[in-house]
Amino acid sequence: MQALKVAMLGCGVVGTEVAARIQDRSEALAERIGAPLELSAIVVRDTAKQRPGIDPSLLTTDAEAAIADADIVIELMGGIEPAKTLIRSALDHGSSVVTANKALLAANYGELMSAADTAGVRLEHEAAVAGAIPIIRPVGDSLAGDRIDRIMGIVNGTTNYILDQMDSEGWGFDEALKTAQELGFAEADPTADVGGHDAAAKAAILSSLAFHAPVTIDDVHVEGIEDITPEMVATARDQGFVIKLLAVCERVSESPAGPGLSARVYPALLGRNHPLATVRGAFNAVFIEAEAAGSLMFYGQGAGGEPTASAVLGDVVSVARRKVLGGRGQYERPFHKDSTILPISAITTRYHITLDVVDRPGVLAAVSEVFSDEGASIELMRQTVGEVDEQGTQHAKLVLATHSNTDAILQGTVDRLGGLSVVRAVKSVIRVEGQ
Amino acid sequence: MQALKVAMLGCGVVGTEVAARIQDRSEALAERIGAPLELSAIVVRDTAKQRPGIDPSLLTTDAEAAIADADIVIELMGGIEPAKTLIRSALDHGSSVVTANKALLAANYGELMSAADTAGVRLEHEAAVAGAIPIIRPVGDSLAGDRIDRIMGIVNGTTNYILDQMDSEGWGFDEALKTAQELGFAEADPTADVGGHDAAAKAAILSSLAFHAPVTIDDVHVEGIEDITPEMVATARDQGFVIKLLAVCERVSESPAGPGLSARVYPALLGRNHPLATVRGAFNAVFIEAEAAGSLMFYGQGAGGEPTASAVLGDVVSVARRKVLGGRGQYERPFHKDSTILPISAITTRYHITLDVVDRPGVLAAVSEVFSDEGASIELMRQTVGEVDEQGTQHAKLVLATHSNTDAILQGTVDRLGGLSVVRAVKSVIRVEGQ
Repeated sequence: MQALKVAMLGCGVVGTEVAARIQDRSEALAERIGAPLELSAIVVRDTAKQRPGIDPSLLTTDAEAAIADADIVIELMGGIEPAKTLIRSALDHGSSVVTANKALLAANYGELMSAADTAGVRLEHEAAVAGAIPIIRPVGDSLAGDRIDRIMGIVNGTTNYILDQMDSEGWGFDEALKTAQELGFAEADPTADVGGHDAAAKAAILSSLAFHAPVTIDDVHVEGIEDITPEMVATARDQGFVIKLLAVCERVSESPAGPGLSARVYPALLGRNHPLATVRGAFNAVFIEAEAAGSLMFYGQGAGGEPTASAVLGDVVSVARRKVLGGRGQYERPFHKDSTILPISAITTRYHITLDVVDRPGVLAAVSEVFSDEGASIELMRQTVGEVDEQGTQHAKLVLATHSNTDAILQGTVDRLGGLSVVRAVKSVIRVEGQ
Repeated sequence: MQALKVAMLGCGVVGTEVAARIQDRSEALAERIGAPLELSAIVVRDTAKQRPGIDPSLLTTDAEAAIADADIVIELMGGIEPAKTLIRSALDHGSSVVTANKALLAANYGELMSAADTAGVRLEHEAAVAGAIPIIRPVGDSLAGDRIDRIMGIVNGTTNYILDQMDSEGWGFDEALKTAQELGFAEADPTADVGGHDAAAKAAILSSLAFHAPVTIDDVHVEGIEDITPEMVATARDQGFVIKLLAVCERVSESPAGPGLSARVYPALLGRNHPLATVRGAFNAVFIEAEAAGSLMFYGQGAGGEPTASAVLGDVVSVARRKVLGGRGQYERPFHKDSTILPISAITTRYHITLDVVDRPGVLAAVSEVFSDEGASIELMRQTVGEVDEQGTQHAKLVLATHSNTDAILQGTVDRLGGLSVVRAVKSVIRVEGQ
């Protein structure tokens, strides 16, 4: 049988691993597919650069020619352009495309999937979310007959490593970040990870897939972990919680803004008996609640050359098989373009609020009054004696766990608490998830 | 678009749920598929029986007529016959089939998959392993470009519930089984579950799928949990282990019987920090080690009407979409019919052995001599003072952890230990996995 030509756009860590595996596993891949794969071109910016293990004769800067000659295109350049134009070009040319490009999909999921659908080919993207963990296929295919209500994911390894070290070793944020950088778990510029933006891209893709609606990264409410302190981590631990950066994708049937979808990323308290609480180090996991299937969890390595290459090659085998056996394949259909994506203010959640208060009679009354004024309620209150300050005033630490309410109301409550004369500082505010 | 006719064979707990969901979610399913589904017939033995929620006009005893009229067949009868004949008939008729029948697939995986392949249709079976947990698609498709080396699964909820209660509550086996029966987690006749046979069927299916080889239930080495005592569970706990009934599917590169595959089910010690150790109650989980992807875990509800119906409907949507969009779909290819399936004796493992010995000088020397004679070695030995028996002899409990060796050598060592005059009884032998 004639070989299927594969053009690869980009050749970084993942690309090098993909190229190596296409060569090393050629026999096994040909068996699985029913035809051999032939790496026909690797498009790079600099063909002169030394790339160990890569056949230099495959390197080219001419992306359009490489695409025109290929049966299957693997896009591993990352970023929006030129990746988007090249993927569109490949789809229009009738080639299926495999991509790991989360930034691009998080910005243009609906548009690119429609383009693939119109062209009668596939745009596979298992590697774009949670690395090697099969999540796109389970969500898109295995649960296609069910109704997914909620996805909660630990989808960024860097932040999970940092939070895990803070929890298990008592480290501060800076120390944990520095070690993560030394171990290669964090970039020199860690903003995209610790700010929650990488997780937000994945939340957009997962929401689009699970709810058949074009959710973009701009729709995702994002808070990072930069302000998590060892004290917050210790307090969480004392109360049976662990702090995790969660990507939450939710179908909301009732909210002040009506029914709709919510996609959000923030550090949250998670009960230690929740399956996601056991996800350690740089591992990723995605927890799904579906109407009939109940609770499901998928766990594995979310990044790295080899795991990501595994996901890319699974997609390559899938589209290659379709090419050999015929059949255009199919996507999730249809997209609900009119879905309402809810603002964070409309989402129902719970807060744990830690206040530095003046330890004197009337404090609890003042705090309680704010809650009742705002329509919020306190589930649990714990006061512990704090320091005496320079003015000789005795402080206390007041930890409040709220009942469920909208984020807007809880935020309004916190704002007003901060303005009370007896409250010296709002030390921390963190949401509770997974209960 | 014309409706796709669905015939359902069997109408028990899962079937009732599937029928209800096809009706209740008809609009959502039609959207996903691109055409409506029409439940055209439900084949049962007794059409007169009251079935709440089921339209009596759909009930029939004429399976062949129902199949001839259908586009898609759902087989939920269970057992080998007549299920096998009817599935063959549907495939020959050009209908894709969705089944949850693990017994049938564990006996005839290769034959039935080949029949579907020849007919150019699909035989989907996500519900046959681990209920609602998407595992067939991740193993068969997502990891198709990788090499799966090992699968370890907790794939039987009944035994996991029993072992979990023994571990967390200190219950005995009989008490835990009785409660499982009262809660509906165990059948009146629990033999298939506690004897490991249900898990063995799933191990056969997972092995067939992961290693592209026709592994049947007869190839699976099976040991049940009937002999697990509270003492064994307590000892395991003291040593940082938990006892789980594991289904292990392994690609073995070196063994006394040469390279080959191994499929086995037995209760084993698992370190408490292993992801599978956290699987509680009647939940299931499958842990996969693949060459590039590394460690992955899939977790969820392994049984029950709703979760199983979710898996069945995911498969129905998948084959229906293919029907609408064209394309025959494809299977894992090819099957390595000449794969060697290794006997348990050739598998490398580790034993924890608990002996009741006479507490006198020379015992450790005698025990050590047996190990060195047999070519086995001791990693760790712990002796604790036991009872004084009726003859006034002081006993001791001797716990031995072996280094890795073949099961044959370790079994031979245990047999010889049992024959030593200083050994009053071999109290327990259990393998260690997950390290």
